[in-house]
Amino acid sequence: MSIKIGILGYGNLGRGVECAVRQNEDLELAAVFTRRDPASVAILTEGAAVCRAADAPDWKDRIDVMILCGGSATDLPEQTPEYVKYFNVVDSFDTHAKIPEHYARVDAAAKESSHVGIISVGWDPGMFSLNRLYGNVILPEGKDYTFWGKGVSQGHSDAVRRVEGVKDAKQYTIPVESALEAVRDGSDPDFTTREKHTRECFVVLEEGADAAKVEQEIRTMPNYFADYDTTVHFISEEELLAEHSGIPHGGFVLRSGVTGLDKENRHLVEYRLKLDSNPEFTSSILVAYARAACRLAKEGQCGCKTVFDIAPAYLSPKSGEELRAALL
Amino acid sequence: MSIKIGILGYGNLGRGVECAVRQNEDLELAAVFTRRDPASVAILTEGAAVCRAADAPDWKDRIDVMILCGGSATDLPEQTPEYVKYFNVVDSFDTHAKIPEHYARVDAAAKESSHVGIISVGWDPGMFSLNRLYGNVILPEGKDYTFWGKGVSQGHSDAVRRVEGVKDAKQYTIPVESALEAVRDGSDPDFTTREKHTRECFVVLEEGADAAKVEQEIRTMPNYFADYDTTVHFISEEELLAEHSGIPHGGFVLRSGVTGLDKENRHLVEYRLKLDSNPEFTSSILVAYARAACRLAKEGQCGCKTVFDIAPAYLSPKSGEELRAALL
Repeated sequence: MSIKIGILGYGNLGRGVECAVRQNEDLELAAVFTRRDPASVAILTEGAAVCRAADAPDWKDRIDVMILCGGSATDLPEQTPEYVKYFNVVDSFDTHAKIPEHYARVDAAAKESSHVGIISVGWDPGMFSLNRLYGNVILPEGKDYTFWGKGVSQGHSDAVRRVEGVKDAKQYTIPVESALEAVRDGSDPDFTTREKHTRECFVVLEEGADAAKVEQEIRTMPNYFADYDTTVHFISEEELLAEHSGIPHGGFVLRSGVTGLDKENRHLVEYRLKLDSNPEFTSSILVAYARAACRLAKEGQCGCKTVFDIAPAYLSPKSGEELRAALL
Repeated sequence: MSIKIGILGYGNLGRGVECAVRQNEDLELAAVFTRRDPASVAILTEGAAVCRAADAPDWKDRIDVMILCGGSATDLPEQTPEYVKYFNVVDSFDTHAKIPEHYARVDAAAKESSHVGIISVGWDPGMFSLNRLYGNVILPEGKDYTFWGKGVSQGHSDAVRRVEGVKDAKQYTIPVESALEAVRDGSDPDFTTREKHTRECFVVLEEGADAAKVEQEIRTMPNYFADYDTTVHFISEEELLAEHSGIPHGGFVLRSGVTGLDKENRHLVEYRLKLDSNPEFTSSILVAYARAACRLAKEGQCGCKTVFDIAPAYLSPKSGEELRAALL
């Protein structure tokens, strides 16, 4: 019996979940729910329904886990506590500062309806968080480092697009290689914001725009660019489309710490992601945690969970016996 | 109330556990158990007892978790099923092929005595296994790679020491950098044994030994060296002591896989360890899982577990709330 998956929201993340479901034989896409007119949404999976988001509650007995693919700014704070009334849910809520509040709301709703809600699933928060946790428990005396990139930052790309004279733009966040090396060398460095990441912008100008003025405005933009060394490249619209339409990302989590009676031995744990498609990788994680949500619910568990609360074996379609023989 | 830890076996691993306990405020070393004469064993922790291994059962109400620090070849297959009768236990059993059998024996004994026994804790098996599991569930279509080193292999060092004419020796296992790069580049390469690792030996000769003959015997030794490119350096006893008395190790686990409707996007997950002291890092992991064993037992769980079965939050002294706020 395959696990029936629902997708709420059919953007990059929703399409990524749809593709990821196809890579997992024990999962099956039952339906996609959208706030658009369902007749206008063409999906990739034969046999799966496309329905109005408002009709989702009617599916509560036909879907094992609903994967919520909305945004963290306005969608998920509303949707996760709402949909967990009807379904086991998984979301990718990634506003770090608001996780405790989101957790509390989802936990209350999930416990009332006896469902499982797994929040903040993805790679950061998600896999990076797990690596921070494992690193901290193994090396309690040490330092954490997280670097992002090289990858496209949607927020920074949007900020550049809002500059007057900019027709289109993509922004890459790039970790500073020498900073990474300093961490790996075990010198426990402290970094300023500028020392950890650089920013690179590829900008298509509006006809007649003043390149120097645009560049100046980008490089001095508070919060987004002023604290970084930023490079601005002006390119044609064709080049932007041809060379910069992907959504790559990635990054590094490092834990550097010491052990021994006199703290004489140093250890480095490094976790690295290099991703061609940020949303598809995130989707692949969501799908693995959907499997876990279904299993936990079948065991009678309920409430809000994060990646910290899920034993790794729940993520795999293999039995404990198979896992011990093949991967341990 | 701190968690009372016992250590069975006081070699490199046992001393590492003792040091790791000191780095964790919620843990306390109650006693070290040894097969040697306790009067001959000096430990580092004031207030902790040194006792005969045979007397361990007398301590069953004074120790929350016994960490078994014996070897996998002959000690742990006997000790873990035996001591789990009296204690919650954690071991570092690392004979991969025999894990299923070890699991079954520990599980039966642990269930009968209502204790928790966590086996095969360390970095491989252990952290590397976890990374193989997470990599496989996120990228079900992909390939696994594990590289070891640069580090000292105890087994290979012992093999060199058994060669006639060798007075002392250390052997380093070294991953081939170009092989690592090929994996990172996403070409999904297949490797022969020789292509993944090289071996480097530092050898002190007995007086009058034939260096050429020793080198030939090492390089052609079946199983240990014949399938590898091996370099042999002859050095003085002083140099061996001065330069090669550490026990560094480490390695890499990589998962390379594809996502997307047409598998058009490639992703790389890389986990790396660089360790000054193999036994101290392993010990630090054992201690974190001892915390988990104690908590699971308090919840009324019992039986044999591996790292796959333990939710990460159980490893940390912090509450779920603290973890979500600080590390998620």
